[in-house]
Amino acid sequence: MCTAVNYKTDGFYFGRNLDLHYSYDEKVTITPRNFPLKFRSVGELKNHYAIIGMATEMEGYPLYYDATNEKGVSMAGLNFPGNAVFHPFEEGKDNVSPFEFILWILGQCQNMAEVRKLLSKIHLYDEPFSKDVPLAPLHYMIAYKDESLVVESVADGLKIHENPVGVLANNPEFTYHLHRLNDFMQVTGKTPVNLFSEKLPLKPYSLGMGSMGLPGDLSSSSRFVRAAFVKVQDYEPKGEEESVSQFFHILDAVSQPKGCTEVEGGHFEYTIYSSCVNTEKGIYYYKTYDNSSLTAVSLQKENLDSDKLLQYPLRKKLVVEREN
Amino acid sequence: MCTAVNYKTDGFYFGRNLDLHYSYDEKVTITPRNFPLKFRSVGELKNHYAIIGMATEMEGYPLYYDATNEKGVSMAGLNFPGNAVFHPFEEGKDNVSPFEFILWILGQCQNMAEVRKLLSKIHLYDEPFSKDVPLAPLHYMIAYKDESLVVESVADGLKIHENPVGVLANNPEFTYHLHRLNDFMQVTGKTPVNLFSEKLPLKPYSLGMGSMGLPGDLSSSSRFVRAAFVKVQDYEPKGEEESVSQFFHILDAVSQPKGCTEVEGGHFEYTIYSSCVNTEKGIYYYKTYDNSSLTAVSLQKENLDSDKLLQYPLRKKLVVEREN
Amino acid sequence: MCTAVNYKTDGFYFGRNLDLHYSYDEKVTITPRNFPLKFRSVGELKNHYAIIGMATEMEGYPLYYDATNEKGVSMAGLNFPGNAVFHPFEEGKDNVSPFEFILWILGQCQNMAEVRKLLSKIHLYDEPFSKDVPLAPLHYMIAYKDESLVVESVADGLKIHENPVGVLANNPEFTYHLHRLNDFMQVTGKTPVNLFSEKLPLKPYSLGMGSMGLPGDLSSSSRFVRAAFVKVQDYEPKGEEESVSQFFHILDAVSQPKGCTEVEGGHFEYTIYSSCVNTEKGIYYYKTYDNSSLTAVSLQKENLDSDKLLQYPLRKKLVVEREN
Amino acid sequence: MCTAVNYKTDGFYFGRNLDLHYSYDEKVTITPRNFPLKFRSVGELKNHYAIIGMATEMEGYPLYYDATNEKGVSMAGLNFPGNAVFHPFEEGKDNVSPFEFILWILGQCQNMAEVRKLLSKIHLYDEPFSKDVPLAPLHYMIAYKDESLVVESVADGLKIHENPVGVLANNPEFTYHLHRLNDFMQVTGKTPVNLFSEKLPLKPYSLGMGSMGLPGDLSSSSRFVRAAFVKVQDYEPKGEEESVSQFFHILDAVSQPKGCTEVEGGHFEYTIYSSCVNTEKGIYYYKTYDNSSLTAVSLQKENLDSDKLLQYPLRKKLVVEREN
Repeated sequence: MCTAVNYKTDGFYFGRNLDLHYSYDEKVTITPRNFPLKFRSVGELKNHYAIIGMATEMEGYPLYYDATNEKGVSMAGLNFPGNAVFHPFEEGKDNVSPFEFILWILGQCQNMAEVRKLLSKIHLYDEPFSKDVPLAPLHYMIAYKDESLVVESVADGLKIHENPVGVLANNPEFTYHLHRLNDFMQVTGKTPVNLFSEKLPLKPYSLGMGSMGLPGDLSSSSRFVRAAFVKVQDYEPKGEEESVSQFFHILDAVSQPKGCTEVEGGHFEYTIYSSCVNTEKGIYYYKTYDNSSLTAVSLQKENLDSDKLLQYPLRKKLVVEREN
Repeated sequence: MCTAVNYKTDGFYFGRNLDLHYSYDEKVTITPRNFPLKFRSVGELKNHYAIIGMATEMEGYPLYYDATNEKGVSMAGLNFPGNAVFHPFEEGKDNVSPFEFILWILGQCQNMAEVRKLLSKIHLYDEPFSKDVPLAPLHYMIAYKDESLVVESVADGLKIHENPVGVLANNPEFTYHLHRLNDFMQVTGKTPVNLFSEKLPLKPYSLGMGSMGLPGDLSSSSRFVRAAFVKVQDYEPKGEEESVSQFFHILDAVSQPKGCTEVEGGHFEYTIYSSCVNTEKGIYYYKTYDNSSLTAVSLQKENLDSDKLLQYPLRKKLVVEREN
Repeated sequence: MCTAVNYKTDGFYFGRNLDLHYSYDEKVTITPRNFPLKFRSVGELKNHYAIIGMATEMEGYPLYYDATNEKGVSMAGLNFPGNAVFHPFEEGKDNVSPFEFILWILGQCQNMAEVRKLLSKIHLYDEPFSKDVPLAPLHYMIAYKDESLVVESVADGLKIHENPVGVLANNPEFTYHLHRLNDFMQVTGKTPVNLFSEKLPLKPYSLGMGSMGLPGDLSSSSRFVRAAFVKVQDYEPKGEEESVSQFFHILDAVSQPKGCTEVEGGHFEYTIYSSCVNTEKGIYYYKTYDNSSLTAVSLQKENLDSDKLLQYPLRKKLVVEREN
Repeated sequence: MCTAVNYKTDGFYFGRNLDLHYSYDEKVTITPRNFPLKFRSVGELKNHYAIIGMATEMEGYPLYYDATNEKGVSMAGLNFPGNAVFHPFEEGKDNVSPFEFILWILGQCQNMAEVRKLLSKIHLYDEPFSKDVPLAPLHYMIAYKDESLVVESVADGLKIHENPVGVLANNPEFTYHLHRLNDFMQVTGKTPVNLFSEKLPLKPYSLGMGSMGLPGDLSSSSRFVRAAFVKVQDYEPKGEEESVSQFFHILDAVSQPKGCTEVEGGHFEYTIYSSCVNTEKGIYYYKTYDNSSLTAVSLQKENLDSDKLLQYPLRKKLVVEREN
């Protein structure tokens, strides 16, 4: 399914793995400030913050999977099947459809205070994009600087959770993952010591034994734990190169190799792309399953006052630098 | 520590992760056919098969970590501390030092039958490269087409094991890893079914739950299991691009992110490089910790009848293809 | 902490482990029909169903840990620290203190329909037994024939959950345990088959490998899973002897040996007693940590129309039948 | 299958679980000093140390599963299928059949020095009891005071291992279990501390979380770890009652409940009996699957100079002490 991460070094980075068994022709997409954003119930934003992220364009409308605006506010939608419930239109609220949600937030908020204010009035209602494009059952991570939130619309309403871990995966609800993390208290990147008993001369026979107990499977609950583990260890990257590099290593730890995750019908889910945004500079880095090289698109290098969507197709072919 | 893998698609691939907390300035190194290979006890090979692989050159001598010869025979040495024992010189045997072992085999063998014949006479003896360069405690994987062997020189002699898994990690002895794999019989890339009890309506809440039980830590025993799991699943890459891509995904599943594996003194071990050789074409692909782009060196593009070592320094800097 | 179980064979059994590091001088206690039960807010039950169970008597009042009434309705309170919240008195509800809860239900209900009816009006309020005896933070399992409920008074009110598993442990909330059970779908009492890969000849080297993945620790979340596993397997005891015997084997699988569960201050929690009630016959069987022999008290053998509590001190000394 | 344990408190205890799906009518059996012990190749012991243990008598010969002699030397045979190999008769050795092995050692040795001396000359040869009673594939634990040995006759000969853990289960070889115990270094009976990361406020939500990571299944490798864990924790029983009680709690932690371990044909293996011998006093305690009460037979209360076997049938029926 998917994993999203926010990561603070001397910069602030945000990104995700998209794990599916098919692709919707998503592209890196820039929505400049004057591209008109029409919403079904809450009117139109004629001017708004510019946005960069991964999106499928449909009938001229950018359906973002994950995105960052020019102020650095970032947001991603992740699969949440069976738990996501979007309710009927509710009078007196900002009725926003899930497919509009990322644009609604990133178009208008320059910090987390503004995000929280918008969230306090929002109602994610059950308006599909079209008859043929039903609502995806998603939940969301929103991050900015030191803060990270999870937004889940479930059977008994909209839940907003502080996210001290800065990781989101899929089912079940976020509070479950957060609680379960306590089960891994003793898992460590440090050299383990013998706590079993001093009566027995137990000792490590390999480096890396401190992390024993960490689950290695590809379920959402295990990906949550594993991403959290790699993220919070005591290595502190310095500068853009080390930060971006380490960010992709965190995502690699929860990526889905082809063959390991069957979906119905004998197909396999795999990590279609992994992304990392430098949220302060608006640079969107990504790699794809068969192209481990990084590609980058920079928001600031485009005319942000334009009213036209800009799209960069994904580079999916293996790239090799040949020495001879 | 390290993980080595051989992988058969419509080609035959061989490679490894090198996990350490420091680098010995290793380079992709080609030893052409007429580079004289001098051995301490078994004479000199004036002509031999050409070899490509990763090596540190010391006093003009290529100390290979992993390599493939022009016939496709491949070999890697992996850390085996505490278990590797190299014995004194023994009359009547081919006394080969561990640092010469890869060259001795790859210089002379064009298939596994020839490898087995050489191994039957070999004695890995305790001759260091020099006073300042002691012997590394290694064990070895040798692979060619459908066959894979593990060679371990331990306290009670030289052991040669068939390797049906095509994976090698570190401690303890290979037979331990092979036996332990049985503990993971029920771990699967397929959609899991409820075997717990038909009295309870258990069902998957996430894709990827079939692999629950797979260990996620960085110990050698868990890396062995995890690499084996990703490798043997039912995805069959076609052609060079898919094969090379999938090979690196197998290695990514056991790579060591910085911060997760402390070594003494507060340093962290990490995956310095990952390699994948197309053994039939003699193309050595690699990536490094901070440069996820693939670089390739092709054995066949050089003058193989030369008598000079050829070395290509590793490209370790983050490479980004910028769209704008 | 504790584990409670209900178990259906050709009879219906209910019981629990009490895991603590100290004892409150609890005794098997019979409350006959005419023992006056005074409640702080909901009046007095002068006549009620007779009750048998484990209780500490305080100022003449039986504080039950677990009990069954003459109709077979059974109930146990288990530790739920940090999650149990009892709210202030609420007008218009049946305000029952947690210490009165078991008596309130078992005194009046002869089946689950009656239990549900009482629960629909109940408010567990924050009235302690006395200044010196504060409220214990408990949640509850109530069972009768084919039905089992969990009652949890938490921060946002009273939750009543159907319990298809028939097991209760401690923290966190019941819905968490129920969800997590899905993680163990592939754990089985049956002979395992090789799902890892048909490319590798994996096979069991020991009986019992189907249950690999089952957690062996003493946390509440692992005890829940383990008790559920042993309970639902395909062995079906016949008759009283086999049923009672198997019930205690289920409890043994989650009992706490001395030394394995430190509480603050270097003390160890352990299983003070294990109980099993034949709910139809009103026979309370138990064993204690140092006395593995079963002791039984039969409700039906006493004068149930009495107005006096009856108590049987626990037999805690090791009993040995000596052959010679 | 089975688990054997030796346990030192202020006494020295030895015992085991016998896990099978059928019973051979085993009885507690005393072999007095003058019962003639005939061996197939090594002659006859007319006088020997008296022995108490669990045995099946066949054609007047006691086939011991586990036993202790009047000096306290103790020994048990445990299932070791696929690994146990008994070789042909070998000249110049003490050729002892596996079915004679326990009697040969316990009949003659009063301490571990004498055991080691006998073992140095022994050859376990492939002589069955009879055509209809083939050799069971066993390995052995021998214990006395502070010492414990494991004896395994495997494909490449007889192996004698020091056993610092004082536990034996079944497959694979003992050295495997011993090595694997290192994987559980961080599992503890103590209150766990947050080693995951100080950046996250992880904390225990239940007692017993220190032992997370302990496997809960019924395979031999997991029973070895679990028995070892319970045994070595910091609780130190004082005196006979606490010691015997705790010993059975160790065995309970690895006992096989009916239904959890299928054998071929839909039958279930279960713990037929659990035993504990006070090796200094020669008291054999046991309980059976359906009778959790302890029964004891005392070696010293019989005429040890007799020449007749003494047998006590197992008390297998549920025993209940009824209070009313």
